[in-house]
Amino acid sequence: MLDETAKGVFTIAATPFLPDGALDIESVDRMVDFYAERGATGLTILGMMGEAGKLTSTESIEIIKRVKARTMLPIVVGVSSPGFAAMGALANEAMAAGAAGVMVAPTGGLRSDDQITGYYHNVANTLGDIPFVLQDFPLVTGVTIPSKVILKVVEDCPTCVMLKHEDWPGLEKISALRTASDAGARRISILCGNGGLFLPEEMGRGADGAMTGFAFPEMMAGVVEKMSAGDAAGAQDLFSAYLPMVRYENQPGLGLAIRKYVLAKRGAIAHATLRSPGPKLSTLAIAEIENLLDRQTRALERLA
Amino acid sequence: MLDETAKGVFTIAATPFLPDGALDIESVDRMVDFYAERGATGLTILGMMGEAGKLTSTESIEIIKRVKARTMLPIVVGVSSPGFAAMGALANEAMAAGAAGVMVAPTGGLRSDDQITGYYHNVANTLGDIPFVLQDFPLVTGVTIPSKVILKVVEDCPTCVMLKHEDWPGLEKISALRTASDAGARRISILCGNGGLFLPEEMGRGADGAMTGFAFPEMMAGVVEKMSAGDAAGAQDLFSAYLPMVRYENQPGLGLAIRKYVLAKRGAIAHATLRSPGPKLSTLAIAEIENLLDRQTRALERLA
Amino acid sequence: MLDETAKGVFTIAATPFLPDGALDIESVDRMVDFYAERGATGLTILGMMGEAGKLTSTESIEIIKRVKARTMLPIVVGVSSPGFAAMGALANEAMAAGAAGVMVAPTGGLRSDDQITGYYHNVANTLGDIPFVLQDFPLVTGVTIPSKVILKVVEDCPTCVMLKHEDWPGLEKISALRTASDAGARRISILCGNGGLFLPEEMGRGADGAMTGFAFPEMMAGVVEKMSAGDAAGAQDLFSAYLPMVRYENQPGLGLAIRKYVLAKRGAIAHATLRSPGPKLSTLAIAEIENLLDRQTRALERLA
Amino acid sequence: MLDETAKGVFTIAATPFLPDGALDIESVDRMVDFYAERGATGLTILGMMGEAGKLTSTESIEIIKRVKARTMLPIVVGVSSPGFAAMGALANEAMAAGAAGVMVAPTGGLRSDDQITGYYHNVANTLGDIPFVLQDFPLVTGVTIPSKVILKVVEDCPTCVMLKHEDWPGLEKISALRTASDAGARRISILCGNGGLFLPEEMGRGADGAMTGFAFPEMMAGVVEKMSAGDAAGAQDLFSAYLPMVRYENQPGLGLAIRKYVLAKRGAIAHATLRSPGPKLSTLAIAEIENLLDRQTRALERLA
Repeated sequence: MLDETAKGVFTIAATPFLPDGALDIESVDRMVDFYAERGATGLTILGMMGEAGKLTSTESIEIIKRVKARTMLPIVVGVSSPGFAAMGALANEAMAAGAAGVMVAPTGGLRSDDQITGYYHNVANTLGDIPFVLQDFPLVTGVTIPSKVILKVVEDCPTCVMLKHEDWPGLEKISALRTASDAGARRISILCGNGGLFLPEEMGRGADGAMTGFAFPEMMAGVVEKMSAGDAAGAQDLFSAYLPMVRYENQPGLGLAIRKYVLAKRGAIAHATLRSPGPKLSTLAIAEIENLLDRQTRALERLA
Repeated sequence: MLDETAKGVFTIAATPFLPDGALDIESVDRMVDFYAERGATGLTILGMMGEAGKLTSTESIEIIKRVKARTMLPIVVGVSSPGFAAMGALANEAMAAGAAGVMVAPTGGLRSDDQITGYYHNVANTLGDIPFVLQDFPLVTGVTIPSKVILKVVEDCPTCVMLKHEDWPGLEKISALRTASDAGARRISILCGNGGLFLPEEMGRGADGAMTGFAFPEMMAGVVEKMSAGDAAGAQDLFSAYLPMVRYENQPGLGLAIRKYVLAKRGAIAHATLRSPGPKLSTLAIAEIENLLDRQTRALERLA
Repeated sequence: MLDETAKGVFTIAATPFLPDGALDIESVDRMVDFYAERGATGLTILGMMGEAGKLTSTESIEIIKRVKARTMLPIVVGVSSPGFAAMGALANEAMAAGAAGVMVAPTGGLRSDDQITGYYHNVANTLGDIPFVLQDFPLVTGVTIPSKVILKVVEDCPTCVMLKHEDWPGLEKISALRTASDAGARRISILCGNGGLFLPEEMGRGADGAMTGFAFPEMMAGVVEKMSAGDAAGAQDLFSAYLPMVRYENQPGLGLAIRKYVLAKRGAIAHATLRSPGPKLSTLAIAEIENLLDRQTRALERLA
Repeated sequence: MLDETAKGVFTIAATPFLPDGALDIESVDRMVDFYAERGATGLTILGMMGEAGKLTSTESIEIIKRVKARTMLPIVVGVSSPGFAAMGALANEAMAAGAAGVMVAPTGGLRSDDQITGYYHNVANTLGDIPFVLQDFPLVTGVTIPSKVILKVVEDCPTCVMLKHEDWPGLEKISALRTASDAGARRISILCGNGGLFLPEEMGRGADGAMTGFAFPEMMAGVVEKMSAGDAAGAQDLFSAYLPMVRYENQPGLGLAIRKYVLAKRGAIAHATLRSPGPKLSTLAIAEIENLLDRQTRALERLA
């Protein structure tokens, strides 16, 4: 079961598709192996970057089961939903299929501190004993969650064990949460998103790792390890070698296509296909990616 | 099968729940009868006001089948989805269960004319022969669809047979579409939403009726009938008697709770329950509704 | 000086322009007289509906002075600004020119309770002794202000003497504020916007009047007077006679053009001109307005 | 006068303030010198990052004049406004004070292709002979401008001579515009924003340079020069040395405070002060900046 001690890299797993858009369930095994071999300490599936909204509920369960059958790593399953009944049903199915916990983003339209707190009270009631991750991603949800509200949810809901941190800018939020836990608030796990774009600074502020899907999980594992070992300079050196690609992948609306291109090239999945509707990479974009990959390889060689 | 000649009142059906939030499938029959007896010429189910997002896929199909078993009226089923595969699957299930057509709102994030047109090209390809309603509801979807784009979709996609018109303000859009069809463009059905708040003017501009869930379908049926018969003054007299309530029901976020309260009071459904999360009416709000209903009864008596 | 006892109808004044877009300063006098003769107890100028953003700062001051020269009614001046320095400068100029107080909407981008509270602390500091109106208009500002935050501002800032209430839905907010003031919180004036669309219910919840620009101030004055006198039925009868027009004027983006058309027709201003960019009414829209005015006249005759 | 041949680096100039928030007009000279000595080929003032909204109109003109008095570089002045009259007035004042052209972002609320095109037709009419920059910054304006619309404005309005490119992602937009100009459309200047985060790729797609305020204009000048000279690898090497800082500065809401901190440290302005309301950097943020600056210096040494 997921708890507050989780750390390292929970990779946001892609969902592999065949060129015709059908689920490529065969690719799941090697993708899971790929993530595990490159330092993932957990997997997050059916999140926004997993094209969860484009899957039928049968497909969603199929994926959870396949991932679970392949790995002992803890699995977090995205269960955000407009209704609590559906959220509860999916969460129960996910746990029955072997998930370690679930992740919930706020529904659009929540505004005031009390509305957001009240929403997560309902989430916790709906989920019962199931541990959950509070997903804080204002750029996509439109809901800004103040540190104060997160702390209130942490105080009121013992099953909230992790923050998926993806506010932008968000460094002060990590500091605020850690200052509070140093002063006695329950300390939950903080794993950071945004494709890893601020990972060294986030670790420096007190995060426990990353939860994002950058196509090179080894960068994130390395940065987390070095920062944890007190080697900030080493962490930043490693980070800088990957940063041009991190930045390029971090283009909204286009990022997943870039990520899948790289994952397919690296052999993690068989095809770079996104399920429709989704963007396609232009020839120029592909040339840019290839150039960045090339330069990245050389930067890593220089570093070694 | 739904086609361009559809007119009258397609009521947006509520989804009835028991006080504990379970589906109240028994109430479906009397709700369908209620709508039919008060002048509905069609029913729209699983739309935004039907709390579709809070239903499991099994429940959705169960509702379609139950409605179909009860009525010969044409049924439109909302099938909007982030992915075309899921949209296609639900649309096929809906048609197999007896639907006359489906309704599709644009996915969030579409901005330019070409993006919206391209989206509906994909919708039409996904749906094949299934006739569909283009749902234009910017206040909720965040996507503004210009008249020009609707006309392009109408030109390119013969299966687009109806516009669910819910832009606000939207009167000029109806005029633009009718001017175009008078000049030779294919004339599709235009049924209007927004709780009926502009129905007399919408009919005057060339709409074919209403597609909305105001708790008194007989008002909409009456206004449509009188306007179609050339009795604008009579239509407006009738409309004015209901307008205080139309206006009150038209409060975003609260409207469905008001509507269900009235439907339950009128015996159309057994309980006013919304599935969680949803607002609750305060004592003061209920008193306001009762007062408005009272005044409405007297206004209708004066009119008769 | 504006204070918590303000009540009645503070009309949001239009800004009159000549057909070529130049300021029609001559029309200001008769417009002010028009409002005063029809029951206005105050005037609000340079608000969103006064096309304030389209005026130069010289023109703004010119208008304040002209209005002041014509009337003894208290004048509220909109001084919302991205920067506090500019806000303070305009507020001081306005007060020097004879304003009774100023109105401030939150700057876009404010999200959490603390951010909004902090913003109004700064507003109060900037304004010093000048009494101000907190403008709550989420549909336009994108900032939702919870009742709790308003109460905190009221507690912390003695110069916050009035709420311009324009949330939608917003009735529960009025009740929450009045429940709090009944329990000992400072009671500020609440004047309501939204074109008067919910005025009888707002008064029933404890509002002190209206602050909006519906082209028939006498409706609002009458409703406020009757509600204050305990004649709810009379208030609603009067309201209902105007409601078709209230509703029609309440179309976002188009409303001001409708309002100016009616004001010009009634002789309050010389021309219906909006300063560019602004919408133009179509022939069909004008016919709808004329029909509504006609019906309104007859409804009022029946009432009398 | 600004024309289509503009290229290089138009630095978005900060507006210097004294610690008490008063305009620091004395700092303008050295800031202008700082930019010019580090490769700026033009200056853009009173843009969003210049805190233009927080200035009085008198201050705005004072700044234009002071900048003009100090430099022969072409000056672009931001004149975006809710009203065309105010836009025209400010543009005329700016040109009279020595500006080379003006910049206009679309007003919020524009949605369809035709609305945006129509808006810029009005801009061009309002500005007469004054050359203008079309500012495309959807993240802030909320208005997405398709390539097609930009090309239509370019076709219809000969005074539109430059695109300030700040869509995100935006690389395909540059390619679309260059494909069109290769095919015969008028070729306008494209200068890119987003703090320089995609500058090498943007130059590779056909941009003419940068228009943004990153605190190291020499990076942008170097990248533009090398890319123009065909030295893509050299450009990317230089870019990579600055990228950790570029990324850090590119935090919405916080970026300007970071930028001003660095500019003050580098001696370009006397104080890092932002005019209120504005964020303050925490001690931790300042430590992060210092660390990044330190690492940047060493990366540049390695590169040299």
